[in-house]
Amino acid sequence: MFFVKLVSYTQDGERVVAIASKMSRSRKGWEHHEKSMTDEEVDTWIEDAVLHGYWSPLEHSVYTFSVEGISRVASHQLVRHRVASYTQMSHRFAKPVDEYYDPVMPPSAEKRENVRKAYDEAYREVYKEYYSLLSQGVPEEDARYVLPNGVNTNIVITMNARELYNFFSLRLCSRAQWEIRKIAWSMLEEVKRVHPRLFKYAGPSCIIHENFIRNTPVTLDNLSVEQEFISQRCIEGVPRDGIVKCISNSKHF
Amino acid sequence: MFFVKLVSYTQDGERVVAIASKMSRSRKGWEHHEKSMTDEEVDTWIEDAVLHGYWSPLEHSVYTFSVEGISRVASHQLVRHRVASYTQMSHRFAKPVDEYYDPVMPPSAEKRENVRKAYDEAYREVYKEYYSLLSQGVPEEDARYVLPNGVNTNIVITMNARELYNFFSLRLCSRAQWEIRKIAWSMLEEVKRVHPRLFKYAGPSCIIHENFIRNTPVTLDNLSVEQEFISQRCIEGVPRDGIVKCISNSKHF
Amino acid sequence: MFFVKLVSYTQDGERVVAIASKMSRSRKGWEHHEKSMTDEEVDTWIEDAVLHGYWSPLEHSVYTFSVEGISRVASHQLVRHRVASYTQMSHRFAKPVDEYYDPVMPPSAEKRENVRKAYDEAYREVYKEYYSLLSQGVPEEDARYVLPNGVNTNIVITMNARELYNFFSLRLCSRAQWEIRKIAWSMLEEVKRVHPRLFKYAGPSCIIHENFIRNTPVTLDNLSVEQEFISQRCIEGVPRDGIVKCISNSKHF
Amino acid sequence: MFFVKLVSYTQDGERVVAIASKMSRSRKGWEHHEKSMTDEEVDTWIEDAVLHGYWSPLEHSVYTFSVEGISRVASHQLVRHRVASYTQMSHRFAKPVDEYYDPVMPPSAEKRENVRKAYDEAYREVYKEYYSLLSQGVPEEDARYVLPNGVNTNIVITMNARELYNFFSLRLCSRAQWEIRKIAWSMLEEVKRVHPRLFKYAGPSCIIHENFIRNTPVTLDNLSVEQEFISQRCIEGVPRDGIVKCISNSKHF
Repeated sequence: MFFVKLVSYTQDGERVVAIASKMSRSRKGWEHHEKSMTDEEVDTWIEDAVLHGYWSPLEHSVYTFSVEGISRVASHQLVRHRVASYTQMSHRFAKPVDEYYDPVMPPSAEKRENVRKAYDEAYREVYKEYYSLLSQGVPEEDARYVLPNGVNTNIVITMNARELYNFFSLRLCSRAQWEIRKIAWSMLEEVKRVHPRLFKYAGPSCIIHENFIRNTPVTLDNLSVEQEFISQRCIEGVPRDGIVKCISNSKHF
Repeated sequence: MFFVKLVSYTQDGERVVAIASKMSRSRKGWEHHEKSMTDEEVDTWIEDAVLHGYWSPLEHSVYTFSVEGISRVASHQLVRHRVASYTQMSHRFAKPVDEYYDPVMPPSAEKRENVRKAYDEAYREVYKEYYSLLSQGVPEEDARYVLPNGVNTNIVITMNARELYNFFSLRLCSRAQWEIRKIAWSMLEEVKRVHPRLFKYAGPSCIIHENFIRNTPVTLDNLSVEQEFISQRCIEGVPRDGIVKCISNSKHF
Repeated sequence: MFFVKLVSYTQDGERVVAIASKMSRSRKGWEHHEKSMTDEEVDTWIEDAVLHGYWSPLEHSVYTFSVEGISRVASHQLVRHRVASYTQMSHRFAKPVDEYYDPVMPPSAEKRENVRKAYDEAYREVYKEYYSLLSQGVPEEDARYVLPNGVNTNIVITMNARELYNFFSLRLCSRAQWEIRKIAWSMLEEVKRVHPRLFKYAGPSCIIHENFIRNTPVTLDNLSVEQEFISQRCIEGVPRDGIVKCISNSKHF
Repeated sequence: MFFVKLVSYTQDGERVVAIASKMSRSRKGWEHHEKSMTDEEVDTWIEDAVLHGYWSPLEHSVYTFSVEGISRVASHQLVRHRVASYTQMSHRFAKPVDEYYDPVMPPSAEKRENVRKAYDEAYREVYKEYYSLLSQGVPEEDARYVLPNGVNTNIVITMNARELYNFFSLRLCSRAQWEIRKIAWSMLEEVKRVHPRLFKYAGPSCIIHENFIRNTPVTLDNLSVEQEFISQRCIEGVPRDGIVKCISNSKHF
């Protein structure tokens, strides 16, 4: 079962980011700012950092997710993000048998009965082969070679707010593969719930780059079809007129 | 004024590390382990990870320090640890004048009156030159070239528990320069206060390596002069008989 | 077809490492050392760095490998080494059909005819399902969910000598999974061919740690069953008496 | 004496990047592409990568510089770039005395005689203090606390092409401090000399971001005052009309 949950994070992360940011410009110490910084100042320091690419203070707020029931297709892509920490369920030691075998069905299959049946069939047959190999004494670490790429796994991920901005810019994009995109949108929802001010400007790269070059920022929340982009194209090549529509599509799986 | 304070950290970091560690071997999800893991299990999973070098789960527990009143000699060494996050007071924007000019005096100077006076004199003269340059309209970013390496700065540091183990192994060592060593011992004290179980085996590299190769682990807390090391030498070349004494020396500045 | 080849590397890497190392202790510049450093000095600076854990100069010598015909089980493990660069064949864009479908057979299967047949069967059936999904218009990125974990992929890897030492310490070990272990031994052979002096002390972690704590170093090349280890156990728990045998086993797949 | 030299690099780096890039889309192996890839294709793959932000293949081409005669102000900023390797001359072991003491004079001082004299005076006085401390038996690692931030140091740096693009985007910018900016422009010149095609689009962040959002790319070489930017502002806040002028200013120190 697909499941993305924020299981731990820097409780006062928004203040931590803002104080760290201010300390780069100030001669005073942490305790002074801790006591004196107002909520308005927190907003200002965060906005200033994100809209000008001063990313380093965002590294001091950190988030741990449990991401469960995803395929090894998705986990293989996830761990390519190197500025992050991962602990993954190992099929060398944890056999995906019985109720723990629950391979991922792509949405493109769910919608077409024939196709869905083909997946079901393929997944079921391969499971039999896997089980049979185990019965013949093949070690788990070898038997799993026949398991499908869609086989389910769990992974614990820790990323800081700066890396999350980068992760979101790449993986919320409609060009990202649907499963990692779905994970990214779920992670965004989780962090916006606890730190709405810190992730106010998070979005796919079209939004990030647009905000680096314009005077009035845009956010995912204030986008509408009337929004005029200055960018002639997004970094992936979508022309100006198609960007808002493309963002909207990226939320459908 | 020298000041090292843990200002933010993963509150339930010891559990987070243990649960992540267990999830690599288990088919069950976070919520199951969150509910069922006992304190004894937490100990076991942490000990297992640290004594066998399975460091990755330790990355999920993260610590932010404010380190204030240190020299730029020390901050330059600190930022060489790349698996960490830093936000440093900038002398381009924050002038160290008046009470904010408080350069660091090495302990070797404090003990000898003549030497201490020589430092005081050097620090005072250079301050006059710095101030005079500012008065002549030299930009702060250029005037600071005459400031001493000992000039005080503040820095916010975030490291995870794995990197802290690595940082401690290098910087608690008596061969480390005294100021960064002092910072390292202060940081160790801070994290042991909140997560004594997670940092039970932290220490200079002689202890880390010794624990990788022996059946019965040693800790900084249970060391005594009678402790027999198996290592013929520490990694820095101190022979077996001198190691415990050397560790004890490393705490004096 | 399994294939590991060093396709690019720092030609004068051994000298580069030695000169960089010496420059940390010297006031003279690169050109001076470039001209004056003898081959004996190169040896000395390398040996000094590796046996005392002064790893940073080793980062200046860099190696690029093409690793082909490995499974996605192996590539998933490879990319967990974060201090490295990867470019991987994507099954979103490059369909593994016809002669390009050549999934990996574990050695444990090759030796038993029944088991080998079971793999062949499983791999063949799943291929049919994959092909059929493509024919029905399922996008490549979704059809691949049914492909086996053993499906072949290619990956270009760049690591510096320091990271290679770390990679080897973990992946040459007999506890590492057989396929990544085989890749690691092949990579070691490649780099020893071009830079024998730089990788003289490379080996599984038992050797690395042993060399950190003993006066007379050991190498993979001078090991014999009579070699006495000082370590009571390796980091994975193999007792002293079994270590040399275990290293020897680690080369068999 | 200020000195920036490329001392080692991936000889065939442009081809390596292009082949790696192509391998992510192809089922064929390195040897095939090595033999068949034309120079035009090399250009196309590089351009495609840089203008769409597919940075990972650029990590396979790596550059080592010796940077000498810079201040510790500059080296402290340099080592904040964490995706890179450094070996720095240590003032713990290498005393900057006699001809090796050659602190850096900011250009703002060189132009004004009075100011230049004030620096000379400050640098000379502090040297006397430093020397005197050494004579009194103060350890080198402590005596250096009185040395000026402007004191000269040497550092060996290794960065890959992707990180160089990032480094340049931040440090060629006129908002960067003059000394690191001067180093960055020197490094750019060095890499453009050997790999002009790979670094064709390198530049300060205004150029990088502009190229991410426009249909027709601009380069440092084809810029003229008539060039119209689409960006309303650069990331640092310089308005559209001022950007080209600002880039031109950034080359003056």
